[in-house]
Formats: sequence, structure tokens, C-alpha cells
Amino acid sequence: MIRDLIKKNHSYRRFDSSVKIEPSAIEKWIELARFSPSARNLQPLKFAFSTDESINKLILPHLGWAGYLKDWSGPEEGERPVAYIAVLQDKSLTENVHCDDGIAVQSILLGAVEDGFGGCIIGTVNKSKVAKIFKLPGTLEILWIIALGKPLEKVVIETTTGNEIKYWRDKEDVHHVPKRPLDELIFKKV
Amino acid sequence: MIRDLIKKNHSYRRFDSSVKIEPSAIEKWIELARFSPSARNLQPLKFAFSTDESINKLILPHLGWAGYLKDWSGPEEGERPVAYIAVLQDKSLTENVHCDDGIAVQSILLGAVEDGFGGCIIGTVNKSKVAKIFKLPGTLEILWIIALGKPLEKVVIETTTGNEIKYWRDKEDVHHVPKRPLDELIFKKV
Repeated sequence: MIRDLIKKNHSYRRFDSSVKIEPSAIEKWIELARFSPSARNLQPLKFAFSTDESINKLILPHLGWAGYLKDWSGPEEGERPVAYIAVLQDKSLTENVHCDDGIAVQSILLGAVEDGFGGCIIGTVNKSKVAKIFKLPGTLEILWIIALGKPLEKVVIETTTGNEIKYWRDKEDVHHVPKRPLDELIFKKV
Repeated sequence: MIRDLIKKNHSYRRFDSSVKIEPSAIEKWIELARFSPSARNLQPLKFAFSTDESINKLILPHLGWAGYLKDWSGPEEGERPVAYIAVLQDKSLTENVHCDDGIAVQSILLGAVEDGFGGCIIGTVNKSKVAKIFKLPGTLEILWIIALGKPLEKVVIETTTGNEIKYWRDKEDVHHVPKRPLDELIFKKV
């Protein structure tokens, strides 16, 4: 059931670093993006990825983690992602990816979750630094970094109260994510 | 397997109009978007939908279909969508939905495909006309229209030759979609 898989696909930020991800698994998940819809079928996204521990160490300091958790600066040693995928816009093909990037990241993450992994889409990225690490040409711009690994945290969906959408962690270190109720999302049905 | 579902989720543009979609099914699919990741968990998307034939008739003329098929102006009577979902940006919440819209449409379409339906994300929309039909306030802007129904066409994935990404229909009315090979999408693996 797609519902179960989508509900399991939380933004995971802490992982069991001892569980590695094979490059072939990443390629399989990127292939899911390949099969997904693309505006005008242009397919302007490209991907770079790392499963190499020494490269991952270089990438980590250039990522911003969980803006709402003010006293947590990111995953500690042993809980860090074991792979990163950079979702890239090929500017030689287009200046506008429309919603292709969201479609692609959702496909990739659903593939990862089905295989027992999980991840987080990171938008706070020092793009020029990470571009250098991947030796990207000027035509390829980083849109998102997906951090991946074997999730080591419990995430629970809550329902928002008022307009309070900030996620939080409780004393047992469980991560709570308030989601707006369905009635609030559906403006009109005719 | 998510791979099978993603591979089955083509952009379908012709449907069996005699097979209706219940509003409860649409709500179930929108709920999949609700459970999906959202940048900063802001959840700025809203949705309006129609399963009403008379409303659908008003919406149809304001949509552009399959730009590469120059001698096909859209689905004929009997093959038209039986439902439309308008994916909306709540501008009172944010000016930037990041990639939330792509994530949401992919979740919705995968839900539809699993239930035996399918659809097409339409970006060529006379937004002011469709906004009037749904009586949207100025704070809600249409990002995408998803046309939905029981698919009545065969879609086949091909591999691109060179940079030729235009889809086409053959003599048997089969719709062919060339996808760039995986090697071309993966710029770098380390």
C-alpha cells in the first residue's frame, strides 16, 4: 500500500552510521526519478551522489539541520548520514525545473524507505562548497541535498493546533511533526 | 513494489469518462500529500477539486494539453477527465513552496494509480478563469491542475536518442515517452 510507505517516509535526521548504503541502491532509487513525470518531458535534473565516508565528512559541515531545533546542530558521530544525493538542475537545458525536483525527491525517498532506509531533504546548503566537492561544472546547480541512512529515530505525526507547525523533540528524543488537518487543506470540493 | 507503481504512473491524457471517481477517493489521495514532507513543515499547499461533470466542463477549455502533439487539442467527448484537483499555494503562508508541490502531486498520482486511475499534471492553465470557477480568494494561487480518470491509452517508455525528448503517438495511437538513460542523469558517483 502506497499509503503505508508514504506515512513511513518521514524526514529522518539521525541514522545508524554502521549500516552502509551500496552505490547500486542509490542508482536504483535515482532510476525511480527517471521513470517519474517531467514537465514537457524535458528531464532537466541530474544527480551526483556520495557513499564514501571521507567525502561525506567534507559535505556535512555545509548543511543546515532542522531549523526549529535551536539547541541541536546536526547528527553526531555514529548517527550521521552514510550517503548524500545532490539533486542538480542542468541549466544548459532549462532555467525552470517546474515541480520536477519535488517529484524526483519523493520518488527517491519512497524507494529508500521501501528498502529500509530513509532520509531528509536539505535546502540549507552551502552550494558553492558542495559543488566544489562534487567538482560540478557551472551548468549544474544544486537544488537539494538528500541525506540518507538507516533511520535511528522515532518520528510521530501529530495534528496541528492553530497555526503551530514547528516540529519538536520530547524527553525520550521522539521527533513530533504536527500536520495540518485534512479539512484545512481542502479549500473546496465540488 | 514502489518501482512498479512509479513505472505505471505515466502522464495519461485520455480516459474512460464513464468511470467516475468518488470525492472520498480524491480526499484519500490528497491525504497522501498531507503525510508527505514539507519544507520547514510549513504545509503551504491547499487543494480544490471537482468530480462534478458540469464543473469539469467549465474547467476543460482553460487547460493546455500535450504541447508536442500539434494536431491534438485535447481529449474528446467520452475520453475526458472525470475529476480535477487544483494544487494551490496559500500566499498568506509563504511566497515560496520550495519543492512541496512536486512532492504532493507525485504522492497524489501514486495514490490514484494504485487505485486503478491515473492523471496528468497540467501547467498550461488559464489560472484566473479556473480560479473563478473554484471561487478562490486572492490568497490562493493555482500552481497545477491534475486531470484524473480511468486511463484509456497505452503509454510506453523509450530511451532518448541524442537530446530528443519529445513524446509522440504512433499509428496505433500508443503514446511513446523517451526518457534519458540513467547514465546521463548521474553526473558523478563517489
